[in-house]
Amino acid sequence: MKQFKVAILGASGAVGREMIKVLQERNFPVSELRPLASARSAGQKISFNGQEITIQEINENSFEGIDIVLGASPNKVAKQYKDAIVKSGAVFIDNSSAYRMDPNVPLVVPEINPEDAFKHQGVISNPNCSTIITLVAVNAINKLSPIQAMVASTYQATSGAGANGPIELASQVKALEAGEPVEVKTFQYQIAYNVIPQIGDFLETGFTTEEMKMQNEGRKIMHLPELKVNCTCVRVPVVRSHSISVTAVTKDHLDIETVKNAIANEKGCRLVDDPANRRYPMPLETSDQDIVFVGRIRQDIINENGITLWCCGDQVRKGAATNAIQIAELFIEE
Amino acid sequence: MKQFKVAILGASGAVGREMIKVLQERNFPVSELRPLASARSAGQKISFNGQEITIQEINENSFEGIDIVLGASPNKVAKQYKDAIVKSGAVFIDNSSAYRMDPNVPLVVPEINPEDAFKHQGVISNPNCSTIITLVAVNAINKLSPIQAMVASTYQATSGAGANGPIELASQVKALEAGEPVEVKTFQYQIAYNVIPQIGDFLETGFTTEEMKMQNEGRKIMHLPELKVNCTCVRVPVVRSHSISVTAVTKDHLDIETVKNAIANEKGCRLVDDPANRRYPMPLETSDQDIVFVGRIRQDIINENGITLWCCGDQVRKGAATNAIQIAELFIEE
Repeated sequence: MKQFKVAILGASGAVGREMIKVLQERNFPVSELRPLASARSAGQKISFNGQEITIQEINENSFEGIDIVLGASPNKVAKQYKDAIVKSGAVFIDNSSAYRMDPNVPLVVPEINPEDAFKHQGVISNPNCSTIITLVAVNAINKLSPIQAMVASTYQATSGAGANGPIELASQVKALEAGEPVEVKTFQYQIAYNVIPQIGDFLETGFTTEEMKMQNEGRKIMHLPELKVNCTCVRVPVVRSHSISVTAVTKDHLDIETVKNAIANEKGCRLVDDPANRRYPMPLETSDQDIVFVGRIRQDIINENGITLWCCGDQVRKGAATNAIQIAELFIEE
Repeated sequence: MKQFKVAILGASGAVGREMIKVLQERNFPVSELRPLASARSAGQKISFNGQEITIQEINENSFEGIDIVLGASPNKVAKQYKDAIVKSGAVFIDNSSAYRMDPNVPLVVPEINPEDAFKHQGVISNPNCSTIITLVAVNAINKLSPIQAMVASTYQATSGAGANGPIELASQVKALEAGEPVEVKTFQYQIAYNVIPQIGDFLETGFTTEEMKMQNEGRKIMHLPELKVNCTCVRVPVVRSHSISVTAVTKDHLDIETVKNAIANEKGCRLVDDPANRRYPMPLETSDQDIVFVGRIRQDIINENGITLWCCGDQVRKGAATNAIQIAELFIEE
């Protein structure tokens, strides 16, 4: 089997570390792992397949000889090194949002549009976390009848803001117990025992950048250029796994049992929908896994072609690291 | 001014205690306060306007001479004593759901349908907490153009499950910190660092009893018999104040600035909608108050007659105790 030389851009962050873990777990054929980060994190050791590897400071020459670069950096860093990566001949699978809407860059969820990955010109983008989880959940519905519109409200975990998110939640809980002042750095306001209806920056329309990703990225991934998505993104005091309350309106009426069966048989999905036994997806039960859990599937009350559901998935894994490595795996099979 | 003899049915619970607090705060003209509860709580002392009053065990004769009974008991207790209350000549303002859909019982939010209260035959029902908060938020919209449909996803605080809700959340947080097993009694699953997409019991349709209240009670309160509401109710690890993500579709197209102005001028509402300064409603900032906070108002992406918004309100106060006392206040003015 072909072996790959893999670099991790942003190896010290939450997603970068998870990528290294997932590469190992999934036995990705790695002949060399090259963890890269800024000067601040260079020199740290990471463990991979029993070896200790030192994080190197990134520079323009870091990608020589590399086959695949897994990007777990902010947009700025992705933009700074994109040309050097492409020039080196590596494929850049980038988790930042810098190139997602670039018409020359495929945006891929391997369960949905794997064929798009092969049209790359050196860069493949990994979609937004809530978008990946929601689209995997509704993909089976879209195959039964094209989705025309979705209304979504998210319940996003603190780890979606990076490694500092859960640390801030924990330290706020402790400060409140001790009667000490709560420190706010990562989120806009105290997140402990609160919910915050802002993720990303506000646009003129009143929607946030995060909220528009589900429509914009969803159109590209599902090849539905007319798709309309009204999304509200909310941060909740959960450590890991995003949840989304979704209503999808399709072209044709779909029978609920048909939808449940399709979701149960869909790649990457697990149907957890047994109200009589109080079984439905929850963040606590879906963390540290690569599957999107789907439940509470029911006929929309407003639109006879609507399906309402609830889905949960680990956004650090399926919503980021695992999805990127699943994209890389498409090239093993090739 | 006329003085009223007021009994509290279920005086030892979270809502009952809050009713006593709100009566005092709002200087409700009380000539006698009679706190009633089951044998288990009888004998406890409560404080009211500087007096110490002993909770009495409820029986069929507890309502003699009483003008207003504020009900803060489960449905079973409301049903058990309803006839005795009505027979005594008192008005029963009941926070349980036992009589809400009874055609002979007005269901009242004083900001919306105060006139209905005067049609009572001895019983007036106080609506569901999430329903009250959502309807106060959208009432101004409904006055501009009738609402035809709403999609809502809730973020409901633990205190909505009674006084034990926040106690369970706090004890689970402490158990997790100590590495001890988490005890689950009040909620279906661990609520600390989790969200639970079930409030109430499941119906055949897959919706819960709690979820259907927004449509069924909303129709009655807003006098909109055709209103359709698709609601998903979710418990979140917040102590107090429910939040709701809502899209309301009206008969006519409404301009966003007109909607914002109407909400800013609506009784019982406060507009908190300044994205540039990161101002929007949040549970932490809306607790222990009687106002519904409304923000994130924007044009729906899917339906040109849709308005999307986010609202928060203290469900123990405006969602329960305060609304009941505001109903009672209608009779002072009378």
